[in-house]
Amino acid sequence: MANNDDQFKKVISHAKEYGYVFQSSEIYDGLSAVYDYAQNGAELKKNIRDYWWKAMVQMHDNIVGIDASIFMHPTTWKASGHVDAFNDPLIDNKDSKKRYRADVLIEEYCAKIEAKIDKEIAKAEKRFGDAFNREEFISTNPRVVGYFEKIQAILTRMGKSLEAEDLADVKALIEELEIADPLTGSRNWTDVKQFNLMFGTKLGASAEHAMDLYLRPETAQGIFVNFLNVQKTGRMKIPFGIAQTGKAFRNEIVARQFIFRMREFEQMEMQFFIKPGTQKDWFEYWKETRMKWHTSLGMGTDNYRFHDHEKLAHYADAATDIEFKFPFGFKELEGIHSRTDFDLKQHEEFSGKKLQYFDHEDNASYTPYVLETSIGLDRMFLAVFSNSLIEEELDNNTTRTVLKLPAVLAPVKAAILPLVKKDGLPEIARQIFDDLKWDFNMDYDEKDAVGRRYRRQDANGTPFCITVDHDTLEDQTVTIRHRDTMEQSRVKISDLRDIIKKEVDVKEWLMKM
Amino acid sequence: MANNDDQFKKVISHAKEYGYVFQSSEIYDGLSAVYDYAQNGAELKKNIRDYWWKAMVQMHDNIVGIDASIFMHPTTWKASGHVDAFNDPLIDNKDSKKRYRADVLIEEYCAKIEAKIDKEIAKAEKRFGDAFNREEFISTNPRVVGYFEKIQAILTRMGKSLEAEDLADVKALIEELEIADPLTGSRNWTDVKQFNLMFGTKLGASAEHAMDLYLRPETAQGIFVNFLNVQKTGRMKIPFGIAQTGKAFRNEIVARQFIFRMREFEQMEMQFFIKPGTQKDWFEYWKETRMKWHTSLGMGTDNYRFHDHEKLAHYADAATDIEFKFPFGFKELEGIHSRTDFDLKQHEEFSGKKLQYFDHEDNASYTPYVLETSIGLDRMFLAVFSNSLIEEELDNNTTRTVLKLPAVLAPVKAAILPLVKKDGLPEIARQIFDDLKWDFNMDYDEKDAVGRRYRRQDANGTPFCITVDHDTLEDQTVTIRHRDTMEQSRVKISDLRDIIKKEVDVKEWLMKM
Repeated sequence: MANNDDQFKKVISHAKEYGYVFQSSEIYDGLSAVYDYAQNGAELKKNIRDYWWKAMVQMHDNIVGIDASIFMHPTTWKASGHVDAFNDPLIDNKDSKKRYRADVLIEEYCAKIEAKIDKEIAKAEKRFGDAFNREEFISTNPRVVGYFEKIQAILTRMGKSLEAEDLADVKALIEELEIADPLTGSRNWTDVKQFNLMFGTKLGASAEHAMDLYLRPETAQGIFVNFLNVQKTGRMKIPFGIAQTGKAFRNEIVARQFIFRMREFEQMEMQFFIKPGTQKDWFEYWKETRMKWHTSLGMGTDNYRFHDHEKLAHYADAATDIEFKFPFGFKELEGIHSRTDFDLKQHEEFSGKKLQYFDHEDNASYTPYVLETSIGLDRMFLAVFSNSLIEEELDNNTTRTVLKLPAVLAPVKAAILPLVKKDGLPEIARQIFDDLKWDFNMDYDEKDAVGRRYRRQDANGTPFCITVDHDTLEDQTVTIRHRDTMEQSRVKISDLRDIIKKEVDVKEWLMKM
Repeated sequence: MANNDDQFKKVISHAKEYGYVFQSSEIYDGLSAVYDYAQNGAELKKNIRDYWWKAMVQMHDNIVGIDASIFMHPTTWKASGHVDAFNDPLIDNKDSKKRYRADVLIEEYCAKIEAKIDKEIAKAEKRFGDAFNREEFISTNPRVVGYFEKIQAILTRMGKSLEAEDLADVKALIEELEIADPLTGSRNWTDVKQFNLMFGTKLGASAEHAMDLYLRPETAQGIFVNFLNVQKTGRMKIPFGIAQTGKAFRNEIVARQFIFRMREFEQMEMQFFIKPGTQKDWFEYWKETRMKWHTSLGMGTDNYRFHDHEKLAHYADAATDIEFKFPFGFKELEGIHSRTDFDLKQHEEFSGKKLQYFDHEDNASYTPYVLETSIGLDRMFLAVFSNSLIEEELDNNTTRTVLKLPAVLAPVKAAILPLVKKDGLPEIARQIFDDLKWDFNMDYDEKDAVGRRYRRQDANGTPFCITVDHDTLEDQTVTIRHRDTMEQSRVKISDLRDIIKKEVDVKEWLMKM
């Protein structure tokens, strides 16, 4: 098994080689932390989006979808808190002119202490062997206890200073810890400054007439500002949800890990409007429902875990992440947040409009509470893609690279391969292709030996290869080969549609939820 | 028949009332020329996008789709010509502080002369009756001939001045014609200035470190910069196409006509890469193919026409628009352009990279020519929506409002209506709903008399209403009502899926192409 760094590099290069993800504007040497989805990637991304939309909108008669614009009235972002508080604390090194997130510098310092703890533990484990009691060692060894206390003290102070906007103390902490520029070793730092992560632009023809706009940093607010219009025109009764997929933008300073954290990304969010007091039940309901959606894809239940937030955002009364095991470890894939009535109340205050719901059962109006599920489409793409990329040892001592994408999400569902480029085989293969393309995204490939074509389709993630040979001329049968098992069987051409449909149809997959 | 202005107003208010289109950020009094797609609109828009994607990408084995980012390397827009030449000439009125497009002011002046011509013609027609010969009158009546010559002279001078960037002469023309601010009548104008229509933003943390970016004003360039990567990783052979749907942004000064011209909009574009010299044939092919796509939707062949461009953009060697009859007249819906090798050559020059194709048949490399089909998704939405909204006189002297959307595009395919809210009917209705929702976007409605529910679904554009009544309990049949004909028939519950599928399935509709 390759180590994680190697595996991640393979993911990135495979994504390029097989037309899944390209660096944006590559011919101009790229744009940092921005990527383009290529011919296979665009289909995979689309299939993930559709799988989410179908599960969330089509299958729930009390959830509807909207498609709000990226541009919103700028007051939206005052109400949401993004203008005032959507900041990263930044610090520049005066010598190297490099810029860093101050909190990340401090966290990386703490990570180094953690590494020391790990070292002490490994040493003791080696010395004591089976008699080693990890818990006891950690809580009694003076050196380890000291390290833990130091980390605790540093992070507590940083947290308090950031919360109090005491940026001078954040700088003081960096200086006291003698944190140096990781690239150059210089300790010649500027002051720490807050930097807003929203991209700004100007609407209108000149500075004089212009209106300052932001590119939305999240899609959620497009749902909140439309809440009442959707509720009234859609005659929605609480509890009900509004779902949306779309682009959002954040001017990240430390954007990295391929498509995991990009400056331009796509969210799939659903805001569920509920009666105040019912949020605990709905929180549990959506935790369970969303986890079922993930596991329906068959990517291994061990690859997911919940991470409940201990420290809650000011608007939340409960929050959890669904974390996925990426090549670089467990990281947030989806967030489920009980947001109370914070957002609607803020928009009421800033717009002067009532955003209330009249409950006929209670004969009373109230501002609904909100339960949010928010997943990054690009992260989901990376989860699916990286988890599917496998190097398999075969019986004949060779290896094959196979992209075991869930068939429902695969960009190409089946490839039609005439065994040879003569004897009328390409003509029959074309006929099959032209018949099946109405229902599935298909590929046709007649180049190279058939074994090589199989490998190419394996690496491409195509669930089925269908080979047309000389027997086909006689009996109207073809060989169908399954990507994951490499098993081949002989089937009638007229049965192909049903065989493929059963394996790739969204309905079949959602029924596993 | 209502006049066009009234009809357009009805379209806009119906779009809001039935949850198709809301003004963006309405609670903050809106954002000019930006709109949100509401619960029905989001589905209609998605269905149009899917219908296009399926016809263009899935059905053509030599066309693939990509999904490039909105942010691109800024040199892209120098190469494309947008930095230098994507401008509108603007003029301010010093008294009113209002800003106008100088060319639009002049065109509106000419439109007033045209109105005078129409008046003369109407007068003459009344006088001469059946003996009136329009052509002869226009070419001989001295007053009318004079008007035409005046318009011709004005537009020619404006065209020349704009082309030569002689903005002082554009202003002089406005002054000579004594054009006044339409709002205030003031003739106190500033100079004319060029204004670039791209939205700018800054990538990075500070002015010092920032990179100037633009929001893409068209999706086409995302295809051109990826041409070689897609061709190589997708093993594409010329002729082949790359398709894309996505947002684009233009800082329009005169944005109007609802969603027809917005500042944030979505394009569906396909660039078809061909061998130089074959562009005439492909131009004809794509004109025909795209028109077939439009007419497959059954919205009336008379509502479309080609408008070939007489004056071509510098990069084009042929261009035509598919125009649609909107409530405000025939306007561009789609453009089909023979772009030569202009775009790829520009990117070769600015990137220093070869963007050529090696043709194995010819054993030679060349820069491909490009045939583009480009359609505005929002315009297509408006075409479909406005054309479908009908007030029908019924036999009983009442009228009904019905939204006769092509069934394949309708947001909700069928509504399940229990005749009464008791006797077990809602339970059966729910069962039918839960069974069919796997395949179709469904609605369930048990409120109000069934006649009223029919009207609501008619106005909503739902092709089928399925009513569950007391007979259903006995014989497992329901009444199915067709939106357009209002015909009702009795069918088995078990036949519903096939009946609906036949009418709404994308495959069935594309087969009409």
